[in-house]
Amino acid sequence: MSERNRRLVLAERPTAMVDASTVRTEEAEIPVPAQGEALTRVRYISIDPTIRTRMNDAPGYLPPIGIGEVVRAGGVAEVIESNSGRYTPGDMLFGMTGWQDYAIADEGGNRMQRLPAGVSPTSALSVFGMTGMTAYFGLIDVGKVAEGDVVVVSGAAGATGSTVGQIAKIKGASKVVGIAGGPEKCAWIVDELGFDVAIDYKSEDVRRRLKAEAPAIDVYFDNVGGEILNAALANIAMRGRVVLCGAISGYNERNAPGPSNYTMLIVRRGRMEGFIILDYVDRYAEAQAQIGAWLAEGRIKAAEHLVEGLENAPDALNLLFTGGNTGKVIVKV
Amino acid sequence: MSERNRRLVLAERPTAMVDASTVRTEEAEIPVPAQGEALTRVRYISIDPTIRTRMNDAPGYLPPIGIGEVVRAGGVAEVIESNSGRYTPGDMLFGMTGWQDYAIADEGGNRMQRLPAGVSPTSALSVFGMTGMTAYFGLIDVGKVAEGDVVVVSGAAGATGSTVGQIAKIKGASKVVGIAGGPEKCAWIVDELGFDVAIDYKSEDVRRRLKAEAPAIDVYFDNVGGEILNAALANIAMRGRVVLCGAISGYNERNAPGPSNYTMLIVRRGRMEGFIILDYVDRYAEAQAQIGAWLAEGRIKAAEHLVEGLENAPDALNLLFTGGNTGKVIVKV
Repeated sequence: MSERNRRLVLAERPTAMVDASTVRTEEAEIPVPAQGEALTRVRYISIDPTIRTRMNDAPGYLPPIGIGEVVRAGGVAEVIESNSGRYTPGDMLFGMTGWQDYAIADEGGNRMQRLPAGVSPTSALSVFGMTGMTAYFGLIDVGKVAEGDVVVVSGAAGATGSTVGQIAKIKGASKVVGIAGGPEKCAWIVDELGFDVAIDYKSEDVRRRLKAEAPAIDVYFDNVGGEILNAALANIAMRGRVVLCGAISGYNERNAPGPSNYTMLIVRRGRMEGFIILDYVDRYAEAQAQIGAWLAEGRIKAAEHLVEGLENAPDALNLLFTGGNTGKVIVKV
Repeated sequence: MSERNRRLVLAERPTAMVDASTVRTEEAEIPVPAQGEALTRVRYISIDPTIRTRMNDAPGYLPPIGIGEVVRAGGVAEVIESNSGRYTPGDMLFGMTGWQDYAIADEGGNRMQRLPAGVSPTSALSVFGMTGMTAYFGLIDVGKVAEGDVVVVSGAAGATGSTVGQIAKIKGASKVVGIAGGPEKCAWIVDELGFDVAIDYKSEDVRRRLKAEAPAIDVYFDNVGGEILNAALANIAMRGRVVLCGAISGYNERNAPGPSNYTMLIVRRGRMEGFIILDYVDRYAEAQAQIGAWLAEGRIKAAEHLVEGLENAPDALNLLFTGGNTGKVIVKV
C-alpha cells in the first residue's frame, strides 16, 4: 500500500494524442475521510474515449477536466476506512475514482455503488459497466436491431464494438460485419466472438469490402467516424439506422471532416442518431440482468485488455486511438 | 397551339449549373394517342431540385434521365384528344409531363390525375403538389414538430421552405427562423408569411445569428446542406431533429464536404433523418385536406414564381441554385 497518494493531474490540454506534457504526477497526502465519507484504494480504472474528449476545453455532455484537476475516470475501489454507514471496509465499489491511488467516496456527488454479487471488478467496468450498457442500449434502443438485419460495427475489437457484435448475433442479425485494425483483431472477432466477417481497415479498402459484404446495412454502429462512417453511409439500406456512439478518429483532430455521404440518408430514408449512455441510467438493471444471463449461458464474452500500473494510464488511453487494444482497456492500479 | 411538339431533351450531363449545352430543343411531330391514351397540351411545369439531381448519372431514388430523353418533370396538362375512358377533352390533369409542349397520358405508367375541384393548376404544383406534401410530412412526420418548438428552415423563401415556416407557425412553434438570401426575401418571409426572424445568408454570419436567435433548435428543416447545415447542428437542442429534405448547395458540386458538426448529434442526443415524399403518396389526401382548410382560412399562402415559356425551363431550373426565386418555380408553357 502506497504511503502517499499519487494523483495524475491534467497539466496541459493535448492537441492530439496524450503525451508526456499532458499529465503531471503529483504526490499528496492520503486523504482523510470526513463524516459521511470513506477512504478507498483504487484497484481498477476504466479507460474510455470520453476521458480524452473531456481533456478538450470544448462543449460536451460533461464539463471539461480543469487544468490541475485529477483526470476524471470511472473505476473500482476498495473501502479502507469508513465514516459512513453506506460503506464498510472491504467493500468493492464502483464509481468515479479518477487517475489516482486513493479516492474519497461520499454520500452525495461522489457516491459509489457496491459491486453486485458475482460480478468481478473488471466485468463491472466492461460488460456490466458503461461499455456493456452502451453496446446494449445503442444497438437495441437507438439502432432498433431486428432479426434478419445486416449489422456493421466499427471499432469492432474495442470494448463497445466487441460487445455490439455479440449482442447483434444473439438478437438474430443475419450478418454481423466488424471493422477492426490488423489481422489479429480481425481473426479474434470472427474466431472468438462469432462475427461473420471482419474487415481490416489497415490493409483493406473498406469501401470496396463493405460494398461486397454489406451493400444494404440495416444498422451501422459507429465508434470511429471519419472515412469509415462515410463508407457505411454509402451502403446504408432503405430505412437504415446509423447509431452514433463515438467519433474516435476525430477526437485528436480539430476540424475533422464530416461525412459527405450523409445525403444517402435522404436517398435511403435513413436515420442517424446520437445517444449518451447516461440517459439510460434508470434502465441499467434491465440490461445488466440480460447480459448476466447471456454471460452465464456462455453466449457472450467479456473481452478485457489489462494494463498494469497507474503510471501507465496515459499510455493506456492512447491505445484507444492507436488501436493497440482488443476489448475493454482497464488499468490495474 | 404549336403545330409541332417542342421537346427539351438532355444533350449532355451538366457538371455544375445547367447551361446551353445541357439541353437540346428538338421539334417532333405531335404524338398521336393510341387506344387507352390521351394527347395533352402541357400548360404548367413544376421546377424542382430533383430535376437537376436526375441529370446526374448517380444513384438516386429515381433513375437518371437518359441522354436524348425528354427532361422528366411534373406538370399540369389539358386533354386535347382522348382514346381512353379515363380522360375527357378539356380535363386539366397533373402528372409527369416532361419539358415539352405535348405529352401522352395513358392508363399505366404515365397515368395522370384530374385536378380536384377548386384547385388551381399552379397550386396543384405548389401547396397541393409535392412541395406542399414535402413541407407537411417532413415537418410533422419526420421532424415531429410540437407546440413550443424552435424551428429553423433553410431555403426559407423557396417552395418548400416557405411552406414549412408557415405550417410551423400554425402548429404552435414558439419561434420560426428562416434563412434566405437577400433583403427582399428576408422581408418577404417575415412580413408576408409570418416568420419570426429572417437571417440573410448572403450578408450575415449565419453561425453567429443562429447562436443569438436559436441557440437550441428543436427542428431544423434542411433544404441546403453545406455550411448552413453545419451551423444548425452546432445549435441543435437536446433531442433535436434535423429533417434532411435536400442539399441544394451540393447538387452542382462533386465531393461537397459533409457536416463536421454531426458529432453534436451525440452531445445533444439528436437525430438526423432523410425522407422521400413519394413514400407518403398514400397519405397525400390527408395533407391536402388540411392544407386546403388552412388556405381557405387564410392561414397559409401559396407562394408561386411563374416563368413564361417552355424555352426558359433551363433558366427556371437554375433559379433554384442561384436563389433567384421566391416561392415555387413554375413554368407557364
